[in-house]
Amino acid sequence: MLNFEFKNPTKIYFGKGLIEKVATEIPANAKVLMLYGGGSIIKNGIYEQVKSALKNFEVVEFGGIPANPEYAVLLNALDIIKNQNITYLLAVGGGSVIDGTKFLSSAALYTGTNTWDILQKGIRTEVGMPFGVVLTLPATGSEMNSGAVISRSETKEKFGMGGPGLFPQFSILDPSVISSIPHRQIANGIVDAFTHVLEQYMTYPTGANLQDRIAESIMQNLIEVAPEIMKDNTNYNAQCEFMWSCTMALNGLIQKGVPTDWAIHAIGHELTALFGIDHARTLAIIMGSHYNFNFENKKEKLAQFATRVWHINEGNVDEKARIAITKTEAFFHSLGIQTKLSEYTENYKEAAPFIFKNFTARGMLGLGEHKNITPTDVVKIVEMSY
Amino acid sequence: MLNFEFKNPTKIYFGKGLIEKVATEIPANAKVLMLYGGGSIIKNGIYEQVKSALKNFEVVEFGGIPANPEYAVLLNALDIIKNQNITYLLAVGGGSVIDGTKFLSSAALYTGTNTWDILQKGIRTEVGMPFGVVLTLPATGSEMNSGAVISRSETKEKFGMGGPGLFPQFSILDPSVISSIPHRQIANGIVDAFTHVLEQYMTYPTGANLQDRIAESIMQNLIEVAPEIMKDNTNYNAQCEFMWSCTMALNGLIQKGVPTDWAIHAIGHELTALFGIDHARTLAIIMGSHYNFNFENKKEKLAQFATRVWHINEGNVDEKARIAITKTEAFFHSLGIQTKLSEYTENYKEAAPFIFKNFTARGMLGLGEHKNITPTDVVKIVEMSY
Repeated sequence: MLNFEFKNPTKIYFGKGLIEKVATEIPANAKVLMLYGGGSIIKNGIYEQVKSALKNFEVVEFGGIPANPEYAVLLNALDIIKNQNITYLLAVGGGSVIDGTKFLSSAALYTGTNTWDILQKGIRTEVGMPFGVVLTLPATGSEMNSGAVISRSETKEKFGMGGPGLFPQFSILDPSVISSIPHRQIANGIVDAFTHVLEQYMTYPTGANLQDRIAESIMQNLIEVAPEIMKDNTNYNAQCEFMWSCTMALNGLIQKGVPTDWAIHAIGHELTALFGIDHARTLAIIMGSHYNFNFENKKEKLAQFATRVWHINEGNVDEKARIAITKTEAFFHSLGIQTKLSEYTENYKEAAPFIFKNFTARGMLGLGEHKNITPTDVVKIVEMSY
Repeated sequence: MLNFEFKNPTKIYFGKGLIEKVATEIPANAKVLMLYGGGSIIKNGIYEQVKSALKNFEVVEFGGIPANPEYAVLLNALDIIKNQNITYLLAVGGGSVIDGTKFLSSAALYTGTNTWDILQKGIRTEVGMPFGVVLTLPATGSEMNSGAVISRSETKEKFGMGGPGLFPQFSILDPSVISSIPHRQIANGIVDAFTHVLEQYMTYPTGANLQDRIAESIMQNLIEVAPEIMKDNTNYNAQCEFMWSCTMALNGLIQKGVPTDWAIHAIGHELTALFGIDHARTLAIIMGSHYNFNFENKKEKLAQFATRVWHINEGNVDEKARIAITKTEAFFHSLGIQTKLSEYTENYKEAAPFIFKNFTARGMLGLGEHKNITPTDVVKIVEMSY
């Protein structure tokens, strides 16, 4: 096991009827900026619940944060924070709204001249403006971690950011919100969370057995709950399992003491930046070709995954490992998610040169747990996914 | 899944060579009381490492905190805290030293007249004096939770305490300290951690599958690592698995959203108070008779445990459940830990009346996940353990 540090101070409220807790967690004298997305929270009643809970607070609203939270939009919110002396942020939404709020938390206290540097130069956020979360869409785990991904459509860029100042102070996870989420987004959430676990797990045997087993537990749970929640998104027990699995998939715990990969995300982000494909679907596109291309490095862990998660007990290591990839792709297909880029866009052949150009321009040296996947390798992985 | 709140702000440093981190975590102007036990830290070199790391701090020492941290001893430390204007506590030890430090953290800021009330009246600690931990003995999980158990030999009492103010600010977990721990204490640590998981898991099926699987992961890991660490306590990988499993067994995560039992602990504490038997061994004594006495309530979960952890795939629910109990007792025996009270003391027949008297005097209504185990039931459970 590798040395590690772990601290996750976010307070979780999990369960039905807890949205009113925002009023006890936000300081009484706070001036709150409530951030949300395209307005689904108005239709499903969460907006009313939050507004009612905040009735004794001074609240300014900022709606319209898009999927793949857009830098230009967030700058408008930043103006409001500065001009109206906002002291507390409340994200009411899924990963995009939460990530956008994290950018604002950082930017609000940033002392440099250009807030884009936070993203482009990877400046770590030690202290941000305090914020809380009301989660409306399980998927990214952003509600209990300190990372965010922000997009800039102008330059077709998508960068990560993070730091210990970016943990939500609290997050309210009411699983019953899933009743109003469309199937497409539920499927995305399952694939997103599942791939989060894969990126932290699918490297090589490290002897970190407890982390492995917890990662396998989360994946097993997502596989089991997927057909239940896809069939009936009002099943409360399935809602709970789905939501808590997504949070546990990326709250830092399973990545401690182990190497991690994250190449699928790095490549996937480029596909979203170029084509606007849903984040989770880009992960589904890249997973299989990445694992097949880097098969020799990953086959032992793939075989362990085959045995423990997919219950494949026959065959040698190579055979089990290949079956694990096939089974995972079949799982994604069962959710209505395709795994070939050409199934999403006619312009798929633009992908490899676009990504090669970006990665070389940024001086990207190597992806993956061994940091040895070059831009040339990435071209092959992307072409295998066509 | 039941509604829950979860917040665990303790910062963990896990790995070799991290004891020097105490210097970066304790505020520069702190006046530190360093607390430890019987002096094993002097023999194994940890004392020197901590003192060296604290060379730029004003440090007062208080050694001699015994196993089952004793109220009367702790009052002497409390005098030092008050008379010498201590502002920060550092526990260097195992569960007893950490628990004693938690009592002091609470008592140092307690405004009532009698600090025993914190224990006897179960007063929750919202804010305590800040403290950190250098863990020297994996077992109790106290390094990453907000609970403590304190003994008072004068009255043969042992009470729990807790509250959000009692999380360590940081805990340093260096697995290599296990090289100097005697086999007896390693065996105790394994049984203690294993029983912590059982108390949170062995109730009835609740549909909280992720929590179940993580609990099963920790137990599976302890079963696997036990022979390795008992055979060679210098095996670093085994040290890591053992230490991190003990912490994860009682850091709050697996008890969220599920009912918990804790009857084994409640009864076990009385055996320690009466006979001075090691805490872990009292758990081993009570586990089997508790599960056999409450078999009908617990048999479904016992059968799940049999299948998933002990890999028993044959037999009906009742048969699997009984085998699970037998297998768990055999596991404890394999560590050199006996499971009958008469193997520890000739005066074993004093136990049932002593506990009955205490539980009725305290107005104890019911133990277990259903709060329906009466003092009369406890008598039967204890007698079954003779």
